[in-house]
Amino acid sequence: MANGYSGKILRVDLSKGTTQVETPAENFYRQYLGGRGFVSYFLFRELGRGENPLGPGNKLIFANGPVTGVPIAGSGRNSVGAKSPLTGGYGDAEVGGYWGAELKHAGYDAVIIEGKAEHPVYLWIEDSKVEIRDARHLWGKTTLECQKAIQAELGSESIRVCQTGIAGENQVRYACVVNDLNHAAGRAGMGAVMGSKNLRAIAVKGSQKVELADSEAVSSLAKWLAEDLKTNRAAVNMSQSGTAGGVEALNTMGGLPTRNFQQGVFEGAPKISGAVMKESMLVRRGGCYACPIRCKPHVSVPAPHNVDPEYGGPEYETLAALGSDCGVDDLKAVAKANELCTAYGLDTISTGACIAFAMECFENGILTEKDTGGLKLNFGNAQAMSQMVEMIARKTGLGKVLAEGVARAAKTIGKGAERFAMHVKGQEIPMHEPRFKPGLGVGYAISLTGADHCHNIHDNMYAARVGGVMRDLGVFDPLPTQDLSPAKVRMLMYGSLWQHLLNSLVFCQFVPLSVDRMVDLVRGITGWQTNAWELIKVAERSITMAQAFNIREGKAKADDGLPARFFTPFTAGPLNGVSIKEAAFTQARDTYYSMVGWDKDGVPTLAKLQELGIEWVAKA
Amino acid sequence: MANGYSGKILRVDLSKGTTQVETPAENFYRQYLGGRGFVSYFLFRELGRGENPLGPGNKLIFANGPVTGVPIAGSGRNSVGAKSPLTGGYGDAEVGGYWGAELKHAGYDAVIIEGKAEHPVYLWIEDSKVEIRDARHLWGKTTLECQKAIQAELGSESIRVCQTGIAGENQVRYACVVNDLNHAAGRAGMGAVMGSKNLRAIAVKGSQKVELADSEAVSSLAKWLAEDLKTNRAAVNMSQSGTAGGVEALNTMGGLPTRNFQQGVFEGAPKISGAVMKESMLVRRGGCYACPIRCKPHVSVPAPHNVDPEYGGPEYETLAALGSDCGVDDLKAVAKANELCTAYGLDTISTGACIAFAMECFENGILTEKDTGGLKLNFGNAQAMSQMVEMIARKTGLGKVLAEGVARAAKTIGKGAERFAMHVKGQEIPMHEPRFKPGLGVGYAISLTGADHCHNIHDNMYAARVGGVMRDLGVFDPLPTQDLSPAKVRMLMYGSLWQHLLNSLVFCQFVPLSVDRMVDLVRGITGWQTNAWELIKVAERSITMAQAFNIREGKAKADDGLPARFFTPFTAGPLNGVSIKEAAFTQARDTYYSMVGWDKDGVPTLAKLQELGIEWVAKA
Repeated sequence: MANGYSGKILRVDLSKGTTQVETPAENFYRQYLGGRGFVSYFLFRELGRGENPLGPGNKLIFANGPVTGVPIAGSGRNSVGAKSPLTGGYGDAEVGGYWGAELKHAGYDAVIIEGKAEHPVYLWIEDSKVEIRDARHLWGKTTLECQKAIQAELGSESIRVCQTGIAGENQVRYACVVNDLNHAAGRAGMGAVMGSKNLRAIAVKGSQKVELADSEAVSSLAKWLAEDLKTNRAAVNMSQSGTAGGVEALNTMGGLPTRNFQQGVFEGAPKISGAVMKESMLVRRGGCYACPIRCKPHVSVPAPHNVDPEYGGPEYETLAALGSDCGVDDLKAVAKANELCTAYGLDTISTGACIAFAMECFENGILTEKDTGGLKLNFGNAQAMSQMVEMIARKTGLGKVLAEGVARAAKTIGKGAERFAMHVKGQEIPMHEPRFKPGLGVGYAISLTGADHCHNIHDNMYAARVGGVMRDLGVFDPLPTQDLSPAKVRMLMYGSLWQHLLNSLVFCQFVPLSVDRMVDLVRGITGWQTNAWELIKVAERSITMAQAFNIREGKAKADDGLPARFFTPFTAGPLNGVSIKEAAFTQARDTYYSMVGWDKDGVPTLAKLQELGIEWVAKA
Repeated sequence: MANGYSGKILRVDLSKGTTQVETPAENFYRQYLGGRGFVSYFLFRELGRGENPLGPGNKLIFANGPVTGVPIAGSGRNSVGAKSPLTGGYGDAEVGGYWGAELKHAGYDAVIIEGKAEHPVYLWIEDSKVEIRDARHLWGKTTLECQKAIQAELGSESIRVCQTGIAGENQVRYACVVNDLNHAAGRAGMGAVMGSKNLRAIAVKGSQKVELADSEAVSSLAKWLAEDLKTNRAAVNMSQSGTAGGVEALNTMGGLPTRNFQQGVFEGAPKISGAVMKESMLVRRGGCYACPIRCKPHVSVPAPHNVDPEYGGPEYETLAALGSDCGVDDLKAVAKANELCTAYGLDTISTGACIAFAMECFENGILTEKDTGGLKLNFGNAQAMSQMVEMIARKTGLGKVLAEGVARAAKTIGKGAERFAMHVKGQEIPMHEPRFKPGLGVGYAISLTGADHCHNIHDNMYAARVGGVMRDLGVFDPLPTQDLSPAKVRMLMYGSLWQHLLNSLVFCQFVPLSVDRMVDLVRGITGWQTNAWELIKVAERSITMAQAFNIREGKAKADDGLPARFFTPFTAGPLNGVSIKEAAFTQARDTYYSMVGWDKDGVPTLAKLQELGIEWVAKA
């Protein structure tokens, strides 16, 4: 890298069985960085209009960022992107673990998968050596079995594996991609795309260090961060409790999604809390490459559940999705369902949301035991919940309908089921209640991948957690969680840009790093005399390209909405009587459009494209 | 300043004869910084709609920025702002020298002058002591006489004086404010406002050092800069030739404003070049507080001209305005006219432009010897040019008409004189030819103070000169000077924002400092963990408030235009046949509006105000 920062992108055509390496110019990196920046660029640039997400014309993009694999906390992440089979629009998900770092150490900033293999294959990348290998013997295996088999046949347990599972093979529309067994690129159905390409896994072994423009600067920043994380309250909390602390906290405030978002309080919450998990089943905590924060639980549950700690354990989203949102207060059953999702490659959020949807249909007589194959699919039926996970992954019985996601399932079921389908653009809503956090509610609506809590920022509470980023960006006044004023929309915009920058770098949102230190880190890695303005413009570029992609794929303003439920008041709990006012919501969404340089229909203005140096988007 | 960065603003009510000190909160500083940021804030916030610029209701704001007075090159500057008597809209001008730094050392970030004194006064600020003193004896004096008198009566030659002159007393609409005898806050008629308030001068003596949050960081940056300036080509050029090198350079390229912008080449250019000035009359070079760059010429010319080097000497703008634009190739006469402008407090650009306008009227028979009092006001008549300077300052004869600026003078004169009036919004066009630099042409049109070359950036050549700021802001591709594509508009926008940031800090545009080092400097001074994003947002805030001010004062899209001459091709010289295409110009201007978040009429959108945290602007 003597001549500036650059790297390699591996392109694999599974139809032709060919691989090739591209070396983009430094300016390409500087304008798009990596991660989500890459995903939005390549999807818009290379996909034709109306491409079938599950056809060979879709592209599956594994993208590192400049920070991936650098020895500093927060760097063990990568993006996975493709046109989403859930939304038919822009899709991506981010994931931690060790796989992305390993890919970087093998010398790659991204892998772009094109076409479709004739039969199941997996990819084996060992530095410059790239092989497309038969995976027929791996088809139908759990993720654990698959990983073990690959490591055995390649001869090393230190080989890192990312894969989809049985759910991906079956093209469940919310199948996920699993790294290192317990880290999931969960949302947007990236596992289904992987399955549709007959690609079961990508195994990686890398032997190269990341070249750093100023290794001393990076190392001293890494040391400072490691020291800081020891006492930083947010980080210490994360290490001690992961995200699971959210269950009780949100329940207390009335914002815990319960029974398909009908309520915001769950009487069973204390039974599925992080504290109970810790004392009853936690065996260890894990984390990601180079990170001292141990936010990932590993739980063990004895027979009859037999939960294997290799698969990690349920985090907040999962505890709520498969727990409170299904009315289930049996933590062991939730842990088992979580294990199944990971073993089969299912996104726990969408899975839980689909089951909760079906439960509400069942309780309203829209689905009956005839539909469920005799299952009493009432809220709170832990065993039925668990069984539905199996049926979804294998697409059997009602599982086949639910495997399409709540939006399509509701259409298939009919009888007014749509009113119970909690989704935006076809993607199920994560476990953050919009009536409690209306700013995030607007965030769901404008999220480029459909409802997604990782595309935005969780109101100001969240902003405070990520190290005062709002303050760093010039927003000083705290706002109530319930606020939905233009000032909140500004926070949403800035927070969204920051999230997109993090996911282009790619860097963990749970590692508190100020804007300034982030700039220093990027400088140290790349040697660029870069700054916050230039970097945040990368994020603007990314959201704008992704929005242009969605517009090209036919998404319209009407798709940037929320289910009617959230405009209806809670009838109990601390937020009794509270709802989002529809007029305020619409106003906030439209204000967001205007703030980020989109017209009243959400179409990026030509001037915004020109300002971002991506005028070519208008011509594509 | 134990509790964060803050400071003092001195408010003087000349009608009541009172003074008071305000101490804004730190967040105020962080959102508006100083300089132009302050001027745009206070003008919008405190002036009623339709205030007479020359009435007691106007406010005259002398504003330092966080950098003013800090011991580092580039810090010897301040802004002077008020509603402009030339444009009837937002007005400001920046100026170097020692006065702003002295004001900062007296403890003040700004002085806001309100009301009107009953008789001529001057202000005497010595740290916390503030006096309004009689200035009747100073009225009618040259700036040199006035400064000497004040220094004598206050007992120290180290007292710094800013003042207006006879032109300001007479409320010539383009009277300037002169610091330290040879530094002018030239544009927008700030001297006329000062004169209208019966305020002849502000004398300052300060004994305090600027408190720095991290004096070591600032000092090491200052040392680095001082070292860098020794070899930095742009800086060395500036020290050796000042701006005067522009005469021959622009003439060679065909972009030297000649005979009221009729031509772009001047056969007499070699006679009024920087090189000739250097060898024939330069006696020394001067500069500003803490700056090793000696960009200010001091010239001496013997009898009969008797040019006193105390008044400095002509810089590029002056050489062109009183030289080539008037068709005058007599450098001694230009030096004399420059001295007169400085002695009387006249902006040399507007003065030259007004005389050039009158000359073209004269040559076209629209003005005759009857109007000029017998003066043969042909292009090239150096003596007539000099005499007109006197007449304008004293508002005698035709000078009284021209003292109103070309826009008003053309209306008074009639007979189609308007086609010779080279102005935007009533302010005369500076000496940069829009047909040569069409990007700057659009910059003139959208400049908040009317035609002004210090509100924008001079195309990419200029961008390169100021230390790669475009590159720092993520713009990598150079563009031809003649280009007027959307990519150029993006440069205009970024360049304009950067200029506004520099003028809010306040920092000299001739001292090349990268975005990163600028951020480091602001951090060192203020202790803020700030970054380029936050700082450039201050600039956005400033242009947006100023634009909102102009809109409130009745300015409309039609005011954001250029004289027809620039849409007509040159008929000779290297740019023979070249003009700005009107459609391309309109398109570029409209693109600029959209890029900066203004609607198609140039009105800042509500969402932009909200994003910048200045929603109050919409309610005012």
